[in-house]
Amino acid sequence: MPSYKAPVDDTLFLLNDVLNFQRFGNLPGFADVTPDVLSQILLEAGKICEEALAPLNQIGDEKGCKRHDDASVSTPPGFKEAHDAFAQGGWISLAVPEEYGGQGLPYTLSMAMNEFASSANMSFAMYPGLTQGALAALLRHGDDEQKKLYVPKMAEGRWSGTMNLTEPQCGTDLGLLTTKATPRGDGSYSITGQKIFISAGEHDLTENIVHLVLARIEGAPAGVKGISLFVVPKFLVDGDGALGPRNGVSCGSIEKKMGIHGNATCVMNYDGAQGFLVGEANRGLNAMFVMMNEARLGVAMQGLAQSEVAYQNAAQYAKERLQGRALSGPKDPGKPADPIIVHPDVRRMLLEMKAFNEAARGFALSAALDSDIAHRSDDAASRQAAEDRLGLLTPVLKGVLTDLGFENTVKAQQVLGGHGYIREWGMEQFVRDARICMIYEGANGIQALDLVGRKLPRDGGRAIMAYFKDTAELLAPFESDEAMKSFAAPVKAALDDLQKATMWLMQNAMAKPDNAGAASYDYMHLFGRVALGVMWVKIAQAAMAIKAQEPERAGLMDAKLLTARFYMERMLPETRLRLTRISTGADTMMSLPEEMF
Amino acid sequence: MPSYKAPVDDTLFLLNDVLNFQRFGNLPGFADVTPDVLSQILLEAGKICEEALAPLNQIGDEKGCKRHDDASVSTPPGFKEAHDAFAQGGWISLAVPEEYGGQGLPYTLSMAMNEFASSANMSFAMYPGLTQGALAALLRHGDDEQKKLYVPKMAEGRWSGTMNLTEPQCGTDLGLLTTKATPRGDGSYSITGQKIFISAGEHDLTENIVHLVLARIEGAPAGVKGISLFVVPKFLVDGDGALGPRNGVSCGSIEKKMGIHGNATCVMNYDGAQGFLVGEANRGLNAMFVMMNEARLGVAMQGLAQSEVAYQNAAQYAKERLQGRALSGPKDPGKPADPIIVHPDVRRMLLEMKAFNEAARGFALSAALDSDIAHRSDDAASRQAAEDRLGLLTPVLKGVLTDLGFENTVKAQQVLGGHGYIREWGMEQFVRDARICMIYEGANGIQALDLVGRKLPRDGGRAIMAYFKDTAELLAPFESDEAMKSFAAPVKAALDDLQKATMWLMQNAMAKPDNAGAASYDYMHLFGRVALGVMWVKIAQAAMAIKAQEPERAGLMDAKLLTARFYMERMLPETRLRLTRISTGADTMMSLPEEMF
Repeated sequence: MPSYKAPVDDTLFLLNDVLNFQRFGNLPGFADVTPDVLSQILLEAGKICEEALAPLNQIGDEKGCKRHDDASVSTPPGFKEAHDAFAQGGWISLAVPEEYGGQGLPYTLSMAMNEFASSANMSFAMYPGLTQGALAALLRHGDDEQKKLYVPKMAEGRWSGTMNLTEPQCGTDLGLLTTKATPRGDGSYSITGQKIFISAGEHDLTENIVHLVLARIEGAPAGVKGISLFVVPKFLVDGDGALGPRNGVSCGSIEKKMGIHGNATCVMNYDGAQGFLVGEANRGLNAMFVMMNEARLGVAMQGLAQSEVAYQNAAQYAKERLQGRALSGPKDPGKPADPIIVHPDVRRMLLEMKAFNEAARGFALSAALDSDIAHRSDDAASRQAAEDRLGLLTPVLKGVLTDLGFENTVKAQQVLGGHGYIREWGMEQFVRDARICMIYEGANGIQALDLVGRKLPRDGGRAIMAYFKDTAELLAPFESDEAMKSFAAPVKAALDDLQKATMWLMQNAMAKPDNAGAASYDYMHLFGRVALGVMWVKIAQAAMAIKAQEPERAGLMDAKLLTARFYMERMLPETRLRLTRISTGADTMMSLPEEMF
Repeated sequence: MPSYKAPVDDTLFLLNDVLNFQRFGNLPGFADVTPDVLSQILLEAGKICEEALAPLNQIGDEKGCKRHDDASVSTPPGFKEAHDAFAQGGWISLAVPEEYGGQGLPYTLSMAMNEFASSANMSFAMYPGLTQGALAALLRHGDDEQKKLYVPKMAEGRWSGTMNLTEPQCGTDLGLLTTKATPRGDGSYSITGQKIFISAGEHDLTENIVHLVLARIEGAPAGVKGISLFVVPKFLVDGDGALGPRNGVSCGSIEKKMGIHGNATCVMNYDGAQGFLVGEANRGLNAMFVMMNEARLGVAMQGLAQSEVAYQNAAQYAKERLQGRALSGPKDPGKPADPIIVHPDVRRMLLEMKAFNEAARGFALSAALDSDIAHRSDDAASRQAAEDRLGLLTPVLKGVLTDLGFENTVKAQQVLGGHGYIREWGMEQFVRDARICMIYEGANGIQALDLVGRKLPRDGGRAIMAYFKDTAELLAPFESDEAMKSFAAPVKAALDDLQKATMWLMQNAMAKPDNAGAASYDYMHLFGRVALGVMWVKIAQAAMAIKAQEPERAGLMDAKLLTARFYMERMLPETRLRLTRISTGADTMMSLPEEMF
């Protein structure tokens, strides 16, 4: 069975030493989180993930979810108890405002916990994860009554949440959505239609399930401008929150899929179910985007989380598996062979994972901090800047952390050779589970289009211009810093590539949008390499400062600096290749006649 | 259910128009294969794969193999009938010499058939594939009696073959092998030990199973120089080939694994089983290498095969799935949405697969032709040159075709979005099945080390020098050819990168072998991009000639030229990145202390 140890120390290093968590003390919810409290919360978070969730990961994969003839769904053995413990630990309500029964703590802590939980058991973590997404949408767009009715029970973990977008004919293109909402005359609606791929759509973990559903009110305009958001509880709820009769929504079947077997992916049939409008009519997509943006960061974390747990097990194996001898001569002549970690190519694989994991964690946590600033700061300019950054970087995080996260699970599996392919070792489950992250919450190609087509041009390019300016300002002082130069200079060169690519888009995509489409995926990855490089510069800066002041942490900090160097030497140079590809444009690929594919 | 259409036309184009198959008419077995016969054989090959094997692929995955209490193993429903049909069609014995009941046809045809069969049903194709590998080893290293006893029955498909190398403590490092061989005094040996990961180790497809087993004769030297090869039939065989009593070998269990569920991966227990030495004592590794080299080409074909079938289904889906509108405006305004193939990023994914598949097929078939030359030519210089090329390129083929083949299955799955993750669509099976190709027959990291550590320096670098010379000679005339220049010039630049990388290795790896290890994986992929580029140059050359002479093929040839251009613009430039990585050496990765991983 694979093992998992939550990277509490690394998370603390990133929050405290790299991202200066304490400087946000003026934000609501932050003041109480002193370094001691922070450390205690993360240790507790790690503990429940290691002890309660990780041991259920393989069982969940093996047993999966079962739909019974009465359309009820059982989750794998142990999931119910684990969900109770998770809810009672307050992990769902961490960032929910205190007035709704939550703890009002930073969203950033919730994100850190999401990483641990997703590493330990991604299928499980999706249940509370979806609840958190639904909570965010209700808190932002629900009216007071809806908030009072649903939020406290969901925060408590007694009720869970889902998001219902996809239909058989309507995936990426939500304009094709046909689920109908008919006014009942009492202010509520009858919802009728079929939704597919609904994660956690039906299960036995909670007393009620609160579905957030996109549907089209009769007579609404066609396309995305006629879509509204509804809350549709599995059991109807009276004004006091007591459960009433079963609503007209049920699970038609659960999908057999490649991975995340422990999470029930449901076909949900709405058959005149009573639903309640959330926010304004025909503005449902806007409301759902709140949930989707939150979910995209969550999925980015899942990508990182699978990479982290896969890495841990690969590194362990590489230190223990004796096979062959070091190229430079036996390292352990007393044993029949050396551990395979003596081999450069094994170290290459491990370092590619490690250099990703540590920077990606910093990148994601920094985005979570931006989310906290955007929602909690009382300074309009700070809010705006954070929102700009978050909007710009969310597709990069989602696309890049899940692509590279998946690749890393494949690499980690490779370290184990044949054993990596055998189920009991658990490595192949990480690959199968991680694979979904590249697809759901907007396939990564859609993230790339969102970045290039929407996020770059928005507000006259304000967000990207600010990103260029901030990054240049970060790097400038290091030009004359002997120690930092070797990290900052390659990132500066990579930033130049990103700027050139952006310029190319400005010059070539307006007149010919296909050029934007053809460039989008490479642009997203180019951006990702730069962003991870920027994080390594910040980590290196922190590591040097710590080395000078705290000799007992010098060994760990040297490891950070070596990993940063590895990133600069081997991973960052990809930006040039991406720029080269981008510059070739769309002509060749668009010229091939359809029938020649 | 996914569909499959064997790429017979493309294979014919490559063999006839690009590789000039007919010019090998002087080799034994080639003369009878006129263009008509060739076409007929490939059409028949395609037919049985499409009609008999492909329909069993999902069933095989779903049902898998079962080991019963008596240690017998059942294959999935339909496999036995399909194996009979495959054998009776003469597909196992295609390249076996006529004196042993085979058809003596070119090995190249067998390889083409292997691609089709592996696309249609990889788990199934492994059974006859392993028989063919065992046949090759027996034909090369067995004595006359062994050949007469085993080969005809195996060629007929009544008996099958396996290769037994791996043990729990001994994977890549065969020196650690402990399976014992004790002389019985009658010239035979008692074999005792445990082998793991034995594909097709036990099953119900054939009357007998002929195991080729590596073991150490009592008193033999330690390490790889004390390993011998034995043939150990499941049922002992009398001098006439009649089946005798059960031998002391049995299946202890079958592995649960990520994919290839239709193939039984067995733990094989040898408990004093009677075995017969093949070739010389203590020279077993040499004999096994024949089988392994053949198997490596076969695995390369599997990588391509999975990429091909995954591509076909992704392309089909992209033409049918209506979702969103073209960036340049609606392509099909009468329908609710355009097919997703209008999107540049979808085309990018499809073209990355297509540009790989078509060149990789040419690359693999050209290696198969080299194998035919090496084994059948009566001209020593030709044999030598072909053997050199084959030795050099085998690790490149195995490593690169399986890495990119797997990546392409992931890409193809991505084209289907959420449906790609659902089992019934079949795309995720291609991913799971393709994944093993990067691991077995020498993990790809081992291929890279074999290339850099063994194949490059062998015979004073004769093979790589010849490769450089041949490629330079191919490209030189195109420098002044207006039409061909745009294909040849980028390949020339990529070849320069490969030469620089080779030079870097010569200068840096002798004194410090870790530099070779650190460079090996990138070097292998750099080489692969060049080799595929060379193939695209040859394809482009053929396409232009055909365009000029056969106007009815012009459309197809234009598609070839566009795909070649796509390769040059988007895929070949990776060589520079690989060179950059190689040049950074091993220092950084070797400096990180083991405990910091």
